[in-house]
Amino acid sequence: MRADTLEDIADMVLDHQELYAPLGDVLRKKVRESLLKHHHHQNQKKLANRLPIVRSIADMSRRTSEFHLDKNAVFSPMHAPYYARLDDVSCAGTVLCVLPQIDLHFMKKIPAGAEACNVLVGELEFLNKPVVAFIRLSPAVLLTGLAEVPIATRFLFILLGPLGRGPQYHEIGRSIATLMTDEVFHDVAYKAKDRNDIIAGIDEFLDQVTVLPPGEWDPSIRIEPPKNVPSQEKRKKSNILPNGLVEGDEEEEDSGHGGPELQRTGRWFGGLLLDIKRKAPHYLSDYTDACSLQCVASFLFLYCACMSPVITFGGLLGEATEGRISAIDTGPVLVFEKILFKFCKEYGLSYLSLRTCIGLWTAFLCIVLVATDASSLVCYITRFTEEAFASLICIIFIYEALEKLIHLGDYYPFNKNNNLDKLTTYSCSCVEPSDPINSTLKYWEMNNVTASEIYWEALEVKDCIEKRGEFVGSACGPHGPYVPDVLFWCVILFFSTVIMSAFLKEFKFSNYFPTKVRSIISDFAVFFTILSMVLIDYALGVPSPKLKVPSVFKPTRDDRGWFINPLGPNPWWTAVISLVPALLCTILIFMDQQITAVIINRKEHKLKKACGYHLDLFMVGVMLGVCSLMGLPWFVAATVLSITHVNSLKLESECSAPGEQPKFLGIREQRFTGLMIFTLMGCSVFMTSVLKFIPMPVLYGVFLYMGASSLKGIQFFDRVRLFGMPAKHQPDFIYLRHVPLRKVHLFTIIQLSCLILLWVIKTSKAAIVFPMMVLALVFIRKLMDCIFTKREMSWLDDLMPESKKKKLEDAEEEEEQSIAAEDDGVEQVPLEGYNRKKKKPWL
Amino acid sequence: MRADTLEDIADMVLDHQELYAPLGDVLRKKVRESLLKHHHHQNQKKLANRLPIVRSIADMSRRTSEFHLDKNAVFSPMHAPYYARLDDVSCAGTVLCVLPQIDLHFMKKIPAGAEACNVLVGELEFLNKPVVAFIRLSPAVLLTGLAEVPIATRFLFILLGPLGRGPQYHEIGRSIATLMTDEVFHDVAYKAKDRNDIIAGIDEFLDQVTVLPPGEWDPSIRIEPPKNVPSQEKRKKSNILPNGLVEGDEEEEDSGHGGPELQRTGRWFGGLLLDIKRKAPHYLSDYTDACSLQCVASFLFLYCACMSPVITFGGLLGEATEGRISAIDTGPVLVFEKILFKFCKEYGLSYLSLRTCIGLWTAFLCIVLVATDASSLVCYITRFTEEAFASLICIIFIYEALEKLIHLGDYYPFNKNNNLDKLTTYSCSCVEPSDPINSTLKYWEMNNVTASEIYWEALEVKDCIEKRGEFVGSACGPHGPYVPDVLFWCVILFFSTVIMSAFLKEFKFSNYFPTKVRSIISDFAVFFTILSMVLIDYALGVPSPKLKVPSVFKPTRDDRGWFINPLGPNPWWTAVISLVPALLCTILIFMDQQITAVIINRKEHKLKKACGYHLDLFMVGVMLGVCSLMGLPWFVAATVLSITHVNSLKLESECSAPGEQPKFLGIREQRFTGLMIFTLMGCSVFMTSVLKFIPMPVLYGVFLYMGASSLKGIQFFDRVRLFGMPAKHQPDFIYLRHVPLRKVHLFTIIQLSCLILLWVIKTSKAAIVFPMMVLALVFIRKLMDCIFTKREMSWLDDLMPESKKKKLEDAEEEEEQSIAAEDDGVEQVPLEGYNRKKKKPWL
Repeated sequence: MRADTLEDIADMVLDHQELYAPLGDVLRKKVRESLLKHHHHQNQKKLANRLPIVRSIADMSRRTSEFHLDKNAVFSPMHAPYYARLDDVSCAGTVLCVLPQIDLHFMKKIPAGAEACNVLVGELEFLNKPVVAFIRLSPAVLLTGLAEVPIATRFLFILLGPLGRGPQYHEIGRSIATLMTDEVFHDVAYKAKDRNDIIAGIDEFLDQVTVLPPGEWDPSIRIEPPKNVPSQEKRKKSNILPNGLVEGDEEEEDSGHGGPELQRTGRWFGGLLLDIKRKAPHYLSDYTDACSLQCVASFLFLYCACMSPVITFGGLLGEATEGRISAIDTGPVLVFEKILFKFCKEYGLSYLSLRTCIGLWTAFLCIVLVATDASSLVCYITRFTEEAFASLICIIFIYEALEKLIHLGDYYPFNKNNNLDKLTTYSCSCVEPSDPINSTLKYWEMNNVTASEIYWEALEVKDCIEKRGEFVGSACGPHGPYVPDVLFWCVILFFSTVIMSAFLKEFKFSNYFPTKVRSIISDFAVFFTILSMVLIDYALGVPSPKLKVPSVFKPTRDDRGWFINPLGPNPWWTAVISLVPALLCTILIFMDQQITAVIINRKEHKLKKACGYHLDLFMVGVMLGVCSLMGLPWFVAATVLSITHVNSLKLESECSAPGEQPKFLGIREQRFTGLMIFTLMGCSVFMTSVLKFIPMPVLYGVFLYMGASSLKGIQFFDRVRLFGMPAKHQPDFIYLRHVPLRKVHLFTIIQLSCLILLWVIKTSKAAIVFPMMVLALVFIRKLMDCIFTKREMSWLDDLMPESKKKKLEDAEEEEEQSIAAEDDGVEQVPLEGYNRKKKKPWL
Repeated sequence: MRADTLEDIADMVLDHQELYAPLGDVLRKKVRESLLKHHHHQNQKKLANRLPIVRSIADMSRRTSEFHLDKNAVFSPMHAPYYARLDDVSCAGTVLCVLPQIDLHFMKKIPAGAEACNVLVGELEFLNKPVVAFIRLSPAVLLTGLAEVPIATRFLFILLGPLGRGPQYHEIGRSIATLMTDEVFHDVAYKAKDRNDIIAGIDEFLDQVTVLPPGEWDPSIRIEPPKNVPSQEKRKKSNILPNGLVEGDEEEEDSGHGGPELQRTGRWFGGLLLDIKRKAPHYLSDYTDACSLQCVASFLFLYCACMSPVITFGGLLGEATEGRISAIDTGPVLVFEKILFKFCKEYGLSYLSLRTCIGLWTAFLCIVLVATDASSLVCYITRFTEEAFASLICIIFIYEALEKLIHLGDYYPFNKNNNLDKLTTYSCSCVEPSDPINSTLKYWEMNNVTASEIYWEALEVKDCIEKRGEFVGSACGPHGPYVPDVLFWCVILFFSTVIMSAFLKEFKFSNYFPTKVRSIISDFAVFFTILSMVLIDYALGVPSPKLKVPSVFKPTRDDRGWFINPLGPNPWWTAVISLVPALLCTILIFMDQQITAVIINRKEHKLKKACGYHLDLFMVGVMLGVCSLMGLPWFVAATVLSITHVNSLKLESECSAPGEQPKFLGIREQRFTGLMIFTLMGCSVFMTSVLKFIPMPVLYGVFLYMGASSLKGIQFFDRVRLFGMPAKHQPDFIYLRHVPLRKVHLFTIIQLSCLILLWVIKTSKAAIVFPMMVLALVFIRKLMDCIFTKREMSWLDDLMPESKKKKLEDAEEEEEQSIAAEDDGVEQVPLEGYNRKKKKPWL
């Protein structure tokens, strides 16, 4: 219909009506009058009785640029079953027509190029049969006073009927509005040539609806809208089953990582060059994209998190003494360095020089790996390997955080058997050892201590220990006086930090406060927690152990220069023989780096800027060489910190319509936070006066929190938890629908065994083979192809590259002989809607 | 159809088919053969290709005794959208036909008198048009080899069609099965006279389904079955709207408490006699119903909870000295007793005697109240009053638990400024006061202490305080030595108890372990928590304050006998004048008792044994008299303990089918747990050796937990939380759908103000008017009828008896003039489906 005003439309509708069921002149006039009366919105109060209940709703979106429908069905107040808490906004809706600013608020939600569909229904006492019309206007016309927002109307649905069935008309109107929000149907409505096309469209829609039978459902329940609506593309195919599943639809998401980044180029450094080419265009945006409060929150959090291991113990690393890296620096590289140090001590070799040799070899090997595009082997690292490794690192994090806490008990012993009544007699003083042992005598002699000249009783704890005095008294522990309150206070600080961090982080998903406030609280969760714990600790005054920050830059040891000689005091052949440990070290660093990279580059993270496996490894190699030469700690991947960093930069869509789900948009990819974290780290030296107030147990708590929260995304842990769950309570994991439970359990058990084996090796004397074992994970995964079918593997894990190829072949074969296909022994029932697959004789 | 075997049925179906669309003899024979082939279940693997996929499902229940359909639709494996995690059991389903014991497991779920409906579908290559039949057998026949369970088949649905559309047939079969589980439809199926009745039934069903449009819904989401399915009765009425709501349906639940128990009888003690009559038949079952592990858990928990106030401080009450009931005995009666004690001290009166006088008067007044059926006034206690009072009590509980914990800081001070390095010089010893003040000198004189003769340094803490020595040293706090570790350990114990209790209690709703294990853990939550805390505390050995239990029964004071003389040393007129405080006391005890009773007797609790407002008050009156005469603590209602007791005895239906929701069946009503709690309490004297290990902070933790968990069911707190929530995040409370948000907030603010006022009065000097204020709540509620409409009140609160009557009148009026009715200003849109109501001019 081509019309400019509602009058024209009314006339044309009534003309058309004449053709089918004439109304007569009197009636026609009355109906026309009613149609032109000012309607009121469905969420407005009725102003006067007996006026036709005419309502306008269901704006519909359509791009103007291309003649193709927009995917975002617009929020429609009519759409009750979906937009769950509709009534809450209906008051606001009422005001829409009066206050233009709220109008704009609604307008904001409507995509550009949207067109309206107005649904007008009403009862008329003089009608004895209904007048129904579905009108498409061409071109779309801005009809004033109809929609709440000033957008052009493309469709009109009019229903006027005899008095008394108002609610039914209302429901019909609602149904039409719902229909018009359907992507496929409004496509049909735009293209329909006649009445039959529209009816066919309605039929298609009805075929696809999900039906909840009345006897088993409470219609007053408001169903939350789904997180994601599946693509409607498959509805446009012909072979849809009435239950909404497409016949032969594999429903499979390809979670592998076989992007172009990992294709072998066949040229030297080919991958590296491509990586640089891919990365270069994003370089500027890597800084401009960082303009967000979230980035500030992120680097503050990670600064706090890194501070403890880097500042406190990093300074000690250069000394290469016992105290070195024993802290929460948990990378598997640490295991390697520990072994090396022990080895050097045993055989009287210079640790720093040997380390430099190995480091240089490793750097060389890494660059060889880059040159040969070895990173393309990353495609063999499937979810199985990835998760086993990541779980190990997370567990080490948790374990070490707890160990550190328990360890505090050694420094701050408490008296288990205090008798509160005898507190007046409690004391612990320093006395001269009554019967000094030989080593003590020797020590005194060496340091010119004359025991009898010292006034022992006046010595403080540190002096007493230094002078090898003895502690005597009822308040004395095994190595000195009992320390009151400190240990318990540390325990309180530790767990408060964990609980508060977790609570504040989760606050984003609570129902209180506006989204903005919640997301700020959530982003700054760890920072706020540390801040409040520091304040509480300061207010209480209990002398809990604090972070110790060096206040000046100084060389770690006087007997070493800026550079380390790779040979130094060691014999010449150490430079050659160190190739062997360097090989192990390379495997370890390669695995560590690539697994971390794979986890970060996961499809779920929706990274937009290209990944750079080759470039990253190249940088690791170069930095390894530099660090080794300068005797600095090695530059390697930190799995948990990386995961935490990514998690702290998650970007979600804003939403304000009731029931609208925030969508995960991706990660705020930029280089700024990384830069800031380590710039701040360097500046810590100047912030000693502030940092010295941070209690160590708070930092341990942050570590536990980081380890535990990194575990959350790991599917392996979901599967471990399945062991404790009766089948009926298991969550609706997609793989549980497709793989028999015992197979899922078997898979989990294998993974768990690998994890335990890794842990045992890491802590045992054979720790040196640890890198080999990480590599072995890949081969174990390969072997598992014999136990599990490819279909099962594709649900539980990613497919290995070869099997992927095979799968494609299979699919081709199938198409040819799909009818003659045999049944697969472990196949699901056809109800699930996938096609049967030929069983390979060797499986 | 009357048939005995599948052969008969096949013949009759095919005979019937001849009438409509003859198949021909060859085809007929082939079809008959196929029908008699062994079918396989939908969840069995296909054993050979190309066999007709014949499936049997959807057992349907029907009582044999009466020709009336059973309400419990039986779990049907076909019923995929509802029984959410269907695939998980489908493996078990496969085995059903093989293993009779699993068969029995399924059989258990089927109500007695159930009959089966078998759905048989299949593709046949030689058919060119489908053969469809819906058969009702009369009588029902046990057809072997069809259903998984040996029950008689009443209905058969057969669909055989040409090859190639198998999945569609499958879906049709599934739909028929779903249809047959519908209460209304299988009613139709039983009574249908011909094909048209069946079709009309299907139409009715389709009209009532809830439809999820495909473009806005992900069909792979499995919707959890609803907690409760609404009654299908209204579907049998004619005036249903297509959206499932009945026109003019008020959807109102009458949550008032106007049962026959509260009708005024008009005779002296009439209510009491009726109460006894109602209670008597349940008396035996009150003990037999207690055979359950839950009861053990319940009384162990409540014993632990009551122990602290009753044992520790109950013993002190009789002494009538300062230390009396200051503990966590939080009833409002305590407020009254405190004031009374203070008054007596000030005017030199005998507290015990005056208390006896007041107690006897109060007892008398209570019995007068019982005699006049005053409890029938309880109907004026609406949810508003109830919740304000209950909230107050809960907050007092929480407040006192925390106060007690903080109070521990006074007994166990810690040194805020320990210098860990100077611990060797720390001590705190007792010395002779250098400059004793006068009172000390006097005290020494009185107790024959010669300061110079005492070896002060050797005195222990208690002796030193007793002898008025001074504490000197760096480890000394304000009133004695600093106590190391104890306070922090208490804090850890306290919060661990709270967190662990809450966690274990919630464990029932977690997904781990079988239901049985979970419910045991949940029932024994508090007991397990106390047990583990005691063990940890014992293992650690920190001298935390422990529960002190008297080890012998002994009179609290030597100067009093078993009975107290109401006059004693007080002047005679005190007996008369004490009527005034007794009046206040009566109001208080009446309100306390009745509000608690109303909370316990709430409809939500589904109590089956009649309530006894009159009887309870009578017992309170009698016991008040006895306790007063014997100088025992008064016997009054304990709101929080009562709520906790009820909550610990909640009974839920067992369920094992996936997705089946446990139903709240009611409370395990019995007298056994109450009896046991107080029997155990009495026996505590003999259990001193065990009880003395229980740390007090653990008991305080239990109190906090009880207070906080009692808050959970209170609607008032849900409404308070609404203040912090943006509209889109508000939960789907029924009243939010019907009452404008600002009215809800206004209601909450009024209630909150009342609560704050009560709290202020309770803690201020005017505490004596506290009982009047509780009574005032009822009048405030009455006044609110002027601000809120009756409709709003009926959603937010219960209606007062008068307004209920008015409402009935209104409803009658409405019926008469329903068409001419004006619109109500605050009326909801008609979409919600209720009829308009006449606006009263004075509203």
